[in-house]
Amino acid sequence: RRQGLPEIVYGPGKQAGEIAGIVKVLLDRNDGPVLVTRVGPDTAGQVLAVVPGGRYDDAARLLVWRPALLLGFGVAVVTAGTADGPVAAEAAAVANALGLETTVIRDVGVAGIHRVLAEVERLREADCVIVVAGMEGALASVVGGLVETPVIAVPTSVGYGAALEGVTALLAMLTSCAAGITVVNIDSGFGAALAAYRLTRRRP
Amino acid sequence: RRQGLPEIVYGPGKQAGEIAGIVKVLLDRNDGPVLVTRVGPDTAGQVLAVVPGGRYDDAARLLVWRPALLLGFGVAVVTAGTADGPVAAEAAAVANALGLETTVIRDVGVAGIHRVLAEVERLREADCVIVVAGMEGALASVVGGLVETPVIAVPTSVGYGAALEGVTALLAMLTSCAAGITVVNIDSGFGAALAAYRLTRRRP
Amino acid sequence: RRQGLPEIVYGPGKQAGEIAGIVKVLLDRNDGPVLVTRVGPDTAGQVLAVVPGGRYDDAARLLVWRPALLLGFGVAVVTAGTADGPVAAEAAAVANALGLETTVIRDVGVAGIHRVLAEVERLREADCVIVVAGMEGALASVVGGLVETPVIAVPTSVGYGAALEGVTALLAMLTSCAAGITVVNIDSGFGAALAAYRLTRRRP
Amino acid sequence: RRQGLPEIVYGPGKQAGEIAGIVKVLLDRNDGPVLVTRVGPDTAGQVLAVVPGGRYDDAARLLVWRPALLLGFGVAVVTAGTADGPVAAEAAAVANALGLETTVIRDVGVAGIHRVLAEVERLREADCVIVVAGMEGALASVVGGLVETPVIAVPTSVGYGAALEGVTALLAMLTSCAAGITVVNIDSGFGAALAAYRLTRRRP
Amino acid sequence: RRQGLPEIVYGPGKQAGEIAGIVKVLLDRNDGPVLVTRVGPDTAGQVLAVVPGGRYDDAARLLVWRPALLLGFGVAVVTAGTADGPVAAEAAAVANALGLETTVIRDVGVAGIHRVLAEVERLREADCVIVVAGMEGALASVVGGLVETPVIAVPTSVGYGAALEGVTALLAMLTSCAAGITVVNIDSGFGAALAAYRLTRRRP
Amino acid sequence: RRQGLPEIVYGPGKQAGEIAGIVKVLLDRNDGPVLVTRVGPDTAGQVLAVVPGGRYDDAARLLVWRPALLLGFGVAVVTAGTADGPVAAEAAAVANALGLETTVIRDVGVAGIHRVLAEVERLREADCVIVVAGMEGALASVVGGLVETPVIAVPTSVGYGAALEGVTALLAMLTSCAAGITVVNIDSGFGAALAAYRLTRRRP
Amino acid sequence: RRQGLPEIVYGPGKQAGEIAGIVKVLLDRNDGPVLVTRVGPDTAGQVLAVVPGGRYDDAARLLVWRPALLLGFGVAVVTAGTADGPVAAEAAAVANALGLETTVIRDVGVAGIHRVLAEVERLREADCVIVVAGMEGALASVVGGLVETPVIAVPTSVGYGAALEGVTALLAMLTSCAAGITVVNIDSGFGAALAAYRLTRRRP
Amino acid sequence: RRQGLPEIVYGPGKQAGEIAGIVKVLLDRNDGPVLVTRVGPDTAGQVLAVVPGGRYDDAARLLVWRPALLLGFGVAVVTAGTADGPVAAEAAAVANALGLETTVIRDVGVAGIHRVLAEVERLREADCVIVVAGMEGALASVVGGLVETPVIAVPTSVGYGAALEGVTALLAMLTSCAAGITVVNIDSGFGAALAAYRLTRRRP
Ligand SMILES: Nc1ncnc2c1ncn2[C@@H]1O[C@H](COP(=O)(O)O)[C@@H](O)[C@H]1O
Ligand SMILES: Nc1ncnc2c1ncn2[C@@H]1O[C@H](COP(=O)(O)O)[C@@H](O)[C@H]1O
Ligand SMILES: Nc1ncnc2c1ncn2[C@@H]1O[C@H](COP(=O)(O)O)[C@@H](O)[C@H]1O
Ligand SMILES: Nc1ncnc2c1ncn2[C@@H]1O[C@H](COP(=O)(O)O)[C@@H](O)[C@H]1O
Ligand SMILES: [Mg+2]
Ligand SMILES: [Mg+2]
Ligand SMILES: [Mg+2]
Ligand SMILES: [Mg+2]
Ligand SMILES: [Mg+2]
Ligand SMILES: [Mg+2]
Ligand SMILES: [Mg+2]
Ligand SMILES: [Mg+2]
Repeated sequence: RRQGLPEIVYGPGKQAGEIAGIVKVLLDRNDGPVLVTRVGPDTAGQVLAVVPGGRYDDAARLLVWRPALLLGFGVAVVTAGTADGPVAAEAAAVANALGLETTVIRDVGVAGIHRVLAEVERLREADCVIVVAGMEGALASVVGGLVETPVIAVPTSVGYGAALEGVTALLAMLTSCAAGITVVNIDSGFGAALAAYRLTRRRP
Repeated sequence: RRQGLPEIVYGPGKQAGEIAGIVKVLLDRNDGPVLVTRVGPDTAGQVLAVVPGGRYDDAARLLVWRPALLLGFGVAVVTAGTADGPVAAEAAAVANALGLETTVIRDVGVAGIHRVLAEVERLREADCVIVVAGMEGALASVVGGLVETPVIAVPTSVGYGAALEGVTALLAMLTSCAAGITVVNIDSGFGAALAAYRLTRRRP
Repeated sequence: RRQGLPEIVYGPGKQAGEIAGIVKVLLDRNDGPVLVTRVGPDTAGQVLAVVPGGRYDDAARLLVWRPALLLGFGVAVVTAGTADGPVAAEAAAVANALGLETTVIRDVGVAGIHRVLAEVERLREADCVIVVAGMEGALASVVGGLVETPVIAVPTSVGYGAALEGVTALLAMLTSCAAGITVVNIDSGFGAALAAYRLTRRRP
Repeated sequence: RRQGLPEIVYGPGKQAGEIAGIVKVLLDRNDGPVLVTRVGPDTAGQVLAVVPGGRYDDAARLLVWRPALLLGFGVAVVTAGTADGPVAAEAAAVANALGLETTVIRDVGVAGIHRVLAEVERLREADCVIVVAGMEGALASVVGGLVETPVIAVPTSVGYGAALEGVTALLAMLTSCAAGITVVNIDSGFGAALAAYRLTRRRP
Repeated sequence: RRQGLPEIVYGPGKQAGEIAGIVKVLLDRNDGPVLVTRVGPDTAGQVLAVVPGGRYDDAARLLVWRPALLLGFGVAVVTAGTADGPVAAEAAAVANALGLETTVIRDVGVAGIHRVLAEVERLREADCVIVVAGMEGALASVVGGLVETPVIAVPTSVGYGAALEGVTALLAMLTSCAAGITVVNIDSGFGAALAAYRLTRRRP
Repeated sequence: RRQGLPEIVYGPGKQAGEIAGIVKVLLDRNDGPVLVTRVGPDTAGQVLAVVPGGRYDDAARLLVWRPALLLGFGVAVVTAGTADGPVAAEAAAVANALGLETTVIRDVGVAGIHRVLAEVERLREADCVIVVAGMEGALASVVGGLVETPVIAVPTSVGYGAALEGVTALLAMLTSCAAGITVVNIDSGFGAALAAYRLTRRRP
Repeated sequence: RRQGLPEIVYGPGKQAGEIAGIVKVLLDRNDGPVLVTRVGPDTAGQVLAVVPGGRYDDAARLLVWRPALLLGFGVAVVTAGTADGPVAAEAAAVANALGLETTVIRDVGVAGIHRVLAEVERLREADCVIVVAGMEGALASVVGGLVETPVIAVPTSVGYGAALEGVTALLAMLTSCAAGITVVNIDSGFGAALAAYRLTRRRP
Repeated sequence: RRQGLPEIVYGPGKQAGEIAGIVKVLLDRNDGPVLVTRVGPDTAGQVLAVVPGGRYDDAARLLVWRPALLLGFGVAVVTAGTADGPVAAEAAAVANALGLETTVIRDVGVAGIHRVLAEVERLREADCVIVVAGMEGALASVVGGLVETPVIAVPTSVGYGAALEGVTALLAMLTSCAAGITVVNIDSGFGAALAAYRLTRRRP
């Protein structure tokens, strides 16, 4: 186990049997949460049949055993459009399994700016905001100007043509005019959740 | 002269003498406006000394002879930040020389969303909006959602690192979640002005 | 609903049931046209079975309820080659559903320059021209020189190798030597239609 | 002033006179710190002559008036090599001016892994770590595995050839195998400092 | 046959019958090892049925006839993560068939730096090290600092988003801060094995 | 000397003395033309002072000794715009020094399609056409459709922003809808001239 | 029909019925050869059933009606490796159908330089050489130095990783150190054949 | 000092005084060679005035104190063209200072294939070959096929346009059809020399 961080299994390319084996070892080795990300429903079913006590989150494609107790740290996950939903679901479910309180605010893309403005209070009540947006990723800049707390931007591969499978949103978020925004990898709801979890870890 | 469009000289790489020669020919050949873009003050002075009757716009780096009469068509040019100023100046000055009424609304980048919201009325009063923004270019998406009229987005090379000399803003504007926005080349205030001018040309 | 623009549903990634639900809400909420883009024939059939009164355009892969009355604004959609057809169909059908009169001029790519020259009159009779071209996208430059009215260029992903899935046509159109051409995203017939629709919206 | 964040002036492209004017306005408008980034020593001298009470940090190329009181939040800034120094200096000086305690740990690039291992205690004592590295940016991954607290990675444009002016380090940090690392723009010590500052802002 | 190097058949795009034919010719033409890379199990079975005496390595997807005698030259193949396994298997199996002794050290990615440190002795006992890593490829830099012997880095296409199908790891390894590391093509376990084999060939 | 092709010296990075030395050797070694490309006027003067009998072409930045006799093979060099002039000059001067008859047709970019149409006869009278164009390079496609003879396209680095220093024109020419066009490197008037020269070399 | 060039149908995306219709029109409209490229065997069978008199070339995936009489112009098509075969087959078959004599020289990639050297005589006997090579495309440079006649390089998408689906070979061929080589699009055997055909067309 | 490798100072961005300071420390700390790369002649003079006993190599831009005794290991450094000279000089001088015997074989680019063939014996007599080539980098593939020993390819930034400042040569060398070639960073004569030095380090 790395320095304090929960060890999380990356599902793709692993068979149900392999996943089950790894999960068993991890459940034995320590007593915190154990997660497997990006698992399809069939594989999930097979793993749960062998390693009971877990729960499968369909939208997040996530398997969780022994979710952490809530830490009293609130994360708002905001999305620009419908298609950003699965990435937001992964972010929220992973964060939640690690003990963070999460709210998801959906479909407040900046082309209808009133939508995100209507959510300012909920955004400001969170300890940190995860912004999930594809295409031009402009939502991160607007949210970054609305809150003082940490903003973690997740570019998604939503869009076509000049969206370049998420590269455009990634570049745009990195060069956002809202100061102090940070960025994780394309479609990495997982990465954003872990970054949020790190916010709760302070020097002793 | 191409189909109805004013023939405009591109300054870079031409000597004062060459520019003066071309301008004289154009002034003789037709009777509309004659423009030279991207001219430095020294060259401009030399050209004006030889071909009198013109005017030099320092901020826009533009030379104009025989500006057109105003056509009753209003263009709002909006910028995200201070550094986008020169491109906006070119857009406004070229549009103006071609007979469009122009207003410039400065420094309303989306990291302080109240700034652009405070200008909604002026934006909606225009017949078209030219949005000039570098970095992540998010202003185009927000403006595109605020007005129904044509929006012409000009990405600028403002920014560093992941801004990739304007390519990020360009890609972001092309994949904007605000529908029906159109885009011109990086730093091309000229291109935006001509696109606005075309809006005034309808089938006879 | 955003500022005056018709709210159009993006089909990909949504099930027939979801689409039907969204369409019903939109039909209730306002009384203008309701569109769903990029829908396959099977999904379209299922949606129409649940939400009657709509029409499916096979070539455009578009569902339309309550198309707008014609506004007396004419759009010419021109294509370079056969393979650009589907994108042109989307542009024309969306524009038409929003109240624009559309003509499609097919297969006038510049390698046989007489083809586009033979259409100059029809091009000049339109209030705006949408140019749909892949590969090197040169048709946009030629058309931009033939008409004075707005030209909206749609690069397509037609071609292979150095065509880079539409990026080459996109870059070429952005740096066209024909002044005042504007560009939308690769394969976005939808974007071009909305840009054309904005041309009909003027300050009150 | 945006939502709680200090308004910081971006120096490049502005004359000493302009900077002085803006700084005066900002000093009047609120009573927090006022900063100007990326200022050369000559310009700095001229500005300070007009707007007294400020201090110039040569290494960071930063002007500061009214630095904030220390907030009791510690930031470790780590660099991979000598050439990453100026970016680290900007990060540390901006963070410090905003009230964060900063330590700089220099020249612990991973090609001599004992160097960073020798600093583990100091790294773990910080509330957050800013990793400044160019070339392949591998230091971020190693540090991310050594601490539980937030890690903000700043890719630098140090290197040549395949370093692609910082793009390689940027991409590498985004796809780091150390979970929950976040990334800011190339060479943006400023961005990292602001991200660190946001860590101190929690919901009220 | 090229200058001393074993002629190795590239499997993809060839039918079992074609492969069998080529292998027969090569077995006749010289008396060294004959290999076919990137062969699936079905094709392998069909080829072995026609050209007996060979052996199929499932993990490496490799067919070998007449493997070389061991040369007393040891290669350590190290991987960063589970998903790098197949590329490492190809490297090890090809190297082995050409007469090199190989050990595989698995799953010592730098996010848990103790893992690779625990293997320093085995790494230093090898005559050369092949580092197989995707994502940000940082393992190559760390290993390059731990051993004095030749380090051959193989970037893999493991990862998503900013990993750009191996390009990020490739660029990172090329610009590694560990001096004297060399790099082969993405996913080319084959290339690394041949490079290791060349290390055993010295001027006569 | 390579297979029948004139050995031509590449000037950049060589001092006048070095160039003079190489030219002398080449003049001695064979009796055909000797050329030095991309030489500034000062260097040229110094070289000619030492190796008399040569001629300097200012526009082409070319030094020539012993130009070839004309071979009765005609090349038309066409340019899109003024800024393409220097590349065209290099193409024409090199071709001419190698014995080809050259005509330059200037400034017939496709935004004013009548310009190139007015030159169809001259284009068809040539044995081959070299098309020199930057920006979107569309002229190559139009010329390719107007003549049956070989068309050699030279993309130039003329343009800004999305022109990407000639890469856009290069890609556009490679994916031209006019069949059988061939392309040389960006700004390589030299390459086009040599390709034209090869057209005169047939099997004996 | 364009200026003297045979009109050739591009198969992909067209149904057998559409192809048959187009071919019939073309057979009626003029009396030269009619070709359809990139057609699979099933579609070909269906087309030939409706439009008799044609011939299908399986390796080239080409349909031909009324091939041209031989013109006495010889083209050598050379490939680097087995996988370049299909592109070479297209080049040879199209060239042949247009009246050129073609020889294919296979598998002479430069890693075994004796292979191409063994073919020098056959290469020099041709009137032009088409070089088909993927990966690093080095064969074009070597052939360009061995013959004086026109060399048309066709990069192929053969290779993986850094081969970037043919882009590497394309760039390498464009910047070849062998002067006067020309290049066509990736995998475009068709483009090379047409370029060769143009070599036979001279001013009247 | 890292694991057995000589610690070499990177000159750019360091003042003469700083370099002198670092060199003194390194000369004291151990007793092997001390090198500074990429130093201009003026800086070199100033450093040598303060830290005597060193030697400056002008062509290689290298400072050396206490060069190593020769190890009996021979490196051939081959270049494609004149402009690759400085990179080759760096490779040879660094290798030499570390105790390797070096020969430089100049100007044997593949467009005149006889040149490299004339050097086969010298190439085969070396224990390893460093190939330095820009543009399309094809020399590495040919050399890789001529020798059995390790081949280290150094792409250079020589060339223009599609050479993309060395990226084309880099990609080409990575995807070379000559098996087992390894590659270092663009223009990194230093990296190649260190890779060659590692070849002499074997497990004890
Ligand atoms: N073909 C299309 N391409 C791009 N955007 C579209 C397309 N069709 C609809 N949209 C936009 O997609 C958004 C609706 O997305 P959704 O909420 O997922 O239906 C609206 O902003 C539409 O303007
Ligand atoms: N070094 C920097 N890098 C990026 N943005 C900066 C930097 N310094 C200040 N800024 C931002 O630049 C904006 C101010 O720009 P300006 O109005 O041109 O002074 C504010 O949003 C700052 O947060
Ligand atoms: N996995 C591999 N990756 C790259 N090249 C390979 C691989 N396996 C074999 N080769 C090379 O492929 C060439 C043989 O290709 P072919 O003639 O198609 O069998 C030889 O140069 C081999 O060295
Ligand atoms: N020309 C060079 N190219 C790349 N790295 C170099 C070069 N010269 C020295 N180095 C490396 O730079 C590091 C020293 O950097 P510095 O501490 O800035 O002197 C050492 O790791 C050297 O191996
Ligand atoms: Mg979005
Ligand atoms: Mg902006
Ligand atoms: Mg086209
Ligand atoms: Mg570093
Ligand atoms: Mg890895
Ligand atoms: Mg042009
Ligand atoms: Mg090849
Ligand atoms: Mg070279």
